Amino acid sequence: MDLKTYIRDIPDWPKEGVLFRDITPLLGNKDSFKYAIDAIANHYRDKKVDIVLGAEARGFIIASALAYKMGCGFVPARKPGKLPYATCYAEYELEYGVDKLEMHEDAIKPRDKVLIVDDVIATGGTAAAKVKLVEQLGGEIVGVAFLIELTFLNGRKKLEGYDIFSLISY
Amino acid sequence: MDLKTYIRDIPDWPKEGVLFRDITPLLGNKDSFKYAIDAIANHYRDKKVDIVLGAEARGFIIASALAYKMGCGFVPARKPGKLPYATCYAEYELEYGVDKLEMHEDAIKPRDKVLIVDDVIATGGTAAAKVKLVEQLGGEIVGVAFLIELTFLNGRKKLEGYDIFSLISY
Repeated sequence: MDLKTYIRDIPDWPKEGVLFRDITPLLGNKDSFKYAIDAIANHYRDKKVDIVLGAEARGFIIASALAYKMGCGFVPARKPGKLPYATCYAEYELEYGVDKLEMHEDAIKPRDKVLIVDDVIATGGTAAAKVKLVEQLGGEIVGVAFLIELTFLNGRKKLEGYDIFSLISY
Repeated sequence: MDLKTYIRDIPDWPKEGVLFRDITPLLGNKDSFKYAIDAIANHYRDKKVDIVLGAEARGFIIASALAYKMGCGFVPARKPGKLPYATCYAEYELEYGVDKLEMHEDAIKPRDKVLIVDDVIATGGTAAAKVKLVEQLGGEIVGVAFLIELTFLNGRKKLEGYDIFSLISY
């Protein structure tokens, strides 16, 4: 299945000069949605993953379906102040300044095998923050998976030494 | 399985006097996560659902896994300005003022059978907004499902005439 036919290009969004890859048609079609989730799951089928970690908001969509498919637990990483229990955090750089991702401090146990998933890898900043969160809690990172990789932004450089898998590349 | 044993009570969150029901332990455990998704799917198994609709952010988690399990497409409803393509919207009341939920205007086709899903029904305001969004686009609402129902807030009153299903009640 050519998944790119289910992705809609939106020029100048969220700002001028950016070509946004809109995955909502892919998610909304039962066949492409199932195909994409199954393909990522298949890549990790022998890895005995315990936890699939996704960050809000679009990352939740991919990570939750994948966790269900793989028979794993789902753990959310969220923007500051959104999680109700005790949290740990990791920072990542924005164009101007820094921001944080938070995770519950009991969400991952030492030696849990964790798969980190997101919809898109661009500069890799938030993915690197998720790696830091998992390792703070002693989790073992099985891989970092993306639906889409924007290769020209070189996000992989921030994830050297980890198993990176992306289903669709631009 | 007693799903309540996987829900953590957080007193005074997000503000004093509110007892928050934290579902992250339920999501993070592979057995309770699978049990909850399967139980909701089972309730709608003969309904020929086309689309599962979830609103950001926690709604995405339940709706995406459920869409995968049921072999449906997943459609997101989002806060204003988050969706990149042409949108429709519906309003809902806040404690002070109103807010909006948006959906892509091509996300649902006339006569699509749509299951609306969220993590919690409290006052029912955002669920009613999702109902309006689906009906604006001509979709047929098969049901409105929740992981948790806070029965003392009477949210069902805003959804009269629809099939409402909740897995856990307080």
